[in-house]
Amino acid sequence: MAESMKGLHRSHRCTEVSNENIGQEVTVMGWVQKRRNLGSLIFIDLRDRSGILQLVFDDSTSDAEVLKKANELRSEYVIAATGIVRKRDGAVNNDLKTGDIEIDVKTLRILSESETPPFPIEENSNTKEELRLKYRYLDLRRPDMQRNLILRSKVTTFMRKFLENEGFIEIETPMLTKSTPEGARDYLVPSRVHPGNFYALPQSPQLFKQLLMCSGYDRYLQIVKCFRDEDLRADRQPEFTQVDMELSFVDIDDVIDVNERLLKSLFKEVLDVDIELPIKRMTYKEAMERYGSDKPDTRFGMELVNVSDVVKDCEFGVFANAIKDGGTVRGINATGQGNMPRKKIDKLVEFVKGIGLKGLAYIQIADDGSIKSSFAKFMKDEEMDALIKAMDGKNGDLLLFAADKTKLVFDCLGALRLELADQMGIIDEDKFNFLWVTEFPLFEYSEEQERFVSMHHPFTMPMEEDLDLLDSDLGAVRSKAYDIVLNGYELGGGSVRIHQGDIQEKMFEKLGFTKEDAHERFGFLLDAFKYGVPPHAGLAFGLDRLIMLMAKRDNIREVIAFPKVKDASCLMTDAPNVVDEKQMEELCLASTYVEEKE
Amino acid sequence: MAESMKGLHRSHRCTEVSNENIGQEVTVMGWVQKRRNLGSLIFIDLRDRSGILQLVFDDSTSDAEVLKKANELRSEYVIAATGIVRKRDGAVNNDLKTGDIEIDVKTLRILSESETPPFPIEENSNTKEELRLKYRYLDLRRPDMQRNLILRSKVTTFMRKFLENEGFIEIETPMLTKSTPEGARDYLVPSRVHPGNFYALPQSPQLFKQLLMCSGYDRYLQIVKCFRDEDLRADRQPEFTQVDMELSFVDIDDVIDVNERLLKSLFKEVLDVDIELPIKRMTYKEAMERYGSDKPDTRFGMELVNVSDVVKDCEFGVFANAIKDGGTVRGINATGQGNMPRKKIDKLVEFVKGIGLKGLAYIQIADDGSIKSSFAKFMKDEEMDALIKAMDGKNGDLLLFAADKTKLVFDCLGALRLELADQMGIIDEDKFNFLWVTEFPLFEYSEEQERFVSMHHPFTMPMEEDLDLLDSDLGAVRSKAYDIVLNGYELGGGSVRIHQGDIQEKMFEKLGFTKEDAHERFGFLLDAFKYGVPPHAGLAFGLDRLIMLMAKRDNIREVIAFPKVKDASCLMTDAPNVVDEKQMEELCLASTYVEEKE
Repeated sequence: MAESMKGLHRSHRCTEVSNENIGQEVTVMGWVQKRRNLGSLIFIDLRDRSGILQLVFDDSTSDAEVLKKANELRSEYVIAATGIVRKRDGAVNNDLKTGDIEIDVKTLRILSESETPPFPIEENSNTKEELRLKYRYLDLRRPDMQRNLILRSKVTTFMRKFLENEGFIEIETPMLTKSTPEGARDYLVPSRVHPGNFYALPQSPQLFKQLLMCSGYDRYLQIVKCFRDEDLRADRQPEFTQVDMELSFVDIDDVIDVNERLLKSLFKEVLDVDIELPIKRMTYKEAMERYGSDKPDTRFGMELVNVSDVVKDCEFGVFANAIKDGGTVRGINATGQGNMPRKKIDKLVEFVKGIGLKGLAYIQIADDGSIKSSFAKFMKDEEMDALIKAMDGKNGDLLLFAADKTKLVFDCLGALRLELADQMGIIDEDKFNFLWVTEFPLFEYSEEQERFVSMHHPFTMPMEEDLDLLDSDLGAVRSKAYDIVLNGYELGGGSVRIHQGDIQEKMFEKLGFTKEDAHERFGFLLDAFKYGVPPHAGLAFGLDRLIMLMAKRDNIREVIAFPKVKDASCLMTDAPNVVDEKQMEELCLASTYVEEKE
Repeated sequence: MAESMKGLHRSHRCTEVSNENIGQEVTVMGWVQKRRNLGSLIFIDLRDRSGILQLVFDDSTSDAEVLKKANELRSEYVIAATGIVRKRDGAVNNDLKTGDIEIDVKTLRILSESETPPFPIEENSNTKEELRLKYRYLDLRRPDMQRNLILRSKVTTFMRKFLENEGFIEIETPMLTKSTPEGARDYLVPSRVHPGNFYALPQSPQLFKQLLMCSGYDRYLQIVKCFRDEDLRADRQPEFTQVDMELSFVDIDDVIDVNERLLKSLFKEVLDVDIELPIKRMTYKEAMERYGSDKPDTRFGMELVNVSDVVKDCEFGVFANAIKDGGTVRGINATGQGNMPRKKIDKLVEFVKGIGLKGLAYIQIADDGSIKSSFAKFMKDEEMDALIKAMDGKNGDLLLFAADKTKLVFDCLGALRLELADQMGIIDEDKFNFLWVTEFPLFEYSEEQERFVSMHHPFTMPMEEDLDLLDSDLGAVRSKAYDIVLNGYELGGGSVRIHQGDIQEKMFEKLGFTKEDAHERFGFLLDAFKYGVPPHAGLAFGLDRLIMLMAKRDNIREVIAFPKVKDASCLMTDAPNVVDEKQMEELCLASTYVEEKE
């Protein structure tokens, strides 16, 4: 039976008690981490958000009733204890903030009992994630989960403070809105008042923040939930949080400047990590050429090398034909991996096949300089020498080559480079390598739709230098879009927006929208642009990913209190679930799925 | 044609330029508020978020091309101007922060032209609200709207800072969740992956914040969007923002204490208004008796008087029967309104009829003491005298009486009191009268469902003194719930929660839930409560209403950037709207509404 805490007031959290309180009476409350009986003594580790504090019940000083209650305590019982702070009798525990003190308990109340939890409440227990998520309320008691969520709160508080000082105003945009054209699938919300009509949950506040710039708010900020009904990955959730901003009367450098200073201050304040400014910038083109990725992990080298020129005339059909077909041959040098067993190399081949490449060509250079290669027999000696030289191949190195269409080669070698680095253990996990990637293509070709689509969104400004290319070579037009990359993750991105009606119209035309299409989808933005629109640009950070990287986790579920799993369900609440027939009727909706089954 | 701002950098916002900059070159950017040509001079009022700055073009100093462009400027054009700050030649404008200076413009760029806006961009223009909402991006340029949204941003920033210092952690809870039992209708979100299943948008994070207390987070904060699919009123929106908090190891006084200090600091910091602490507390019972409302406006008196005892034996059937039927007779004294014309009194009668009362009895006491009354003929003289005395009726007063079931009498006189105060102009609009209302009933009887339902929610703790009444008189059980009231508005509310499994079970039983019902709806919370739950309590403020009151507006749409109208639609974006057949198919949904029409 739970006792009330009537008349009691907590005087300290567990680790707020220190040896400065010795001799004082304190009242602490929390969960029983564990109980140990040692002769006539009972020790309790009491846990709260702040940490652990040792309670002692001594049968020479505690009264019988208190001792009896203390003996009933089990893990996760919630208790309130009042007693005197004293120096520990026994050994000091240097692992604990309160390791040199203990509370000699005089009165004890059991505020809540507990059944035995389905898994131990401790850091690094390797409980299956499914169980952790079903009992998330227990999992969230783990000190590491508490650290992660407290870190998250610190980060958003700091970012808001910083950006407020920079003149940003936090403005809430609607959650119940109209489909936005971000490309992904919307979550829809049926309307009861307007049967057959739907709201969409926002994929981003893109249009609204641009409207706020039209309205003269100058600098907008919002830390906001966004939604995408897409299949999940380790770093994706159906609902995710963006740190979203937009600025008026600025160009790229202004956006980069304020965000660099934000990141530098944030990492210094919260993690005591120094970020050197300015953060390096790299064009999209350079990033693809050197790393096969538009979000390169620059904590290590192993860059891609273009050997097309070296092998374009060789007898090895895979190489020569790829180039003849307009593709490319590129390699990476896995330094020191010359002795990799054949089996392991085969696994690398399987890895790139998984991404779409037909195979992987390799040269193993043994420590004594002797060479094993999958394609040497097709090559002249001087061609092999030139190839190894181009790759800077040394004794003991493993050279790996991909030959195919350029985009596929980039994708595969980019991924292979990360996989190898991971296997080789050459990534310095203490590094935070930031990078701006700039000059993204404005369009990309969609094989599915057989037309060019926006790489970001149709409001992205083309580079002034490339405006003429809009009429001649869409694939070559670069945009004023930029991403901020951290350790191989896209941390955020943004762009300068089109603020000129004539360029915006041309964009829609090039994307194949009729005037009616464009008006149907973005009418209110186009209307707003008739009444004086300032040049503006913006950026959004993915907060979940930022916190994941700051907490050095490899899954965003570790930094979200109540995440969904792969099928977008919540294992704790069982959402989504069936609803009453009455609710469906009020919305004038019927499930065609149920009908099919019947 | 829009010019680019390439190579230009804004040096100041408009009102950041001051007479300390005289002689300096500045570059400012913004919207043309108005243009005046005066002889050889052209004056432009330039507007940005910060205010207005005067630009001058002088044909003796500006070159011809600049003058030509300046002559083209129309309202709402966006421009960038570079020039020298100088003292105003003409009269100083004391209404403007920059009223003693002007910019002698040397170069000008037109960044964006503008059509003539559908209404003038100025404060206090009486544009129809429909038009304002359709062109919200223009309406949001009004200085008063900008002040409101900037105030909103200041308030949330301040509250977050204050509560962080008090040990609160901001934790995000899910938007895609399961139906909660708050009584109102949920917005549903169909699931594509689980056809026939739905998420619900949260009406409040109630269950999640209680789980976070179970998880040991100790003090939780979130400024969060919540959703209710109910018909709208002036101070309701389908989506609204709550400042939501929950605290562990506390009782009522702790919650009240931290929130009183929060409100005091907030009003001082943002409005420079002093709130006296402690804020007055009043029980629900007293509030109803004195003001006929659980959210009384205490800026004026005109309290209700119970005259049942005085009239219980009179011959006036309306009075006597009401009391015989278990009802009540109560009155209010509209001081000084004794000469109110009959027509106006009739309107008051119509007013209370609209709320459900059959009529209103009155006594008019003229300045000379003569009496007009709707029911005097049924009363003995001494009964009339006693009644007037009970009402403290003086020459020149108007006494109004309602006789019916007690709840209806409270509702009608409570509303009549506000209506009269408004007509009489006796409300001091500069006052901020805060009040805690406590000891709310735990249950209220639902005529519709023919059973007792929770007045707040089923997790509200009964007062310990009333626990026994759970078995004898549900209607009499008081709860540990509290509301914070400001000037007659419910600003927020909360309660101590049940943390004892046995009391929670009893609550569900009294509410008529079977064990299966309770488990189906709140299973995960009940499960969580098995593993050690701390005593906890919380509170949530309605942010929209708080900002509305701080900004002295009478409609929350004035403090929301993109609000919905009465039918829950957005006049600007036309949300909600029809969606593609493909989207419906993916969700396995069909509209029964469309089918009915065909």
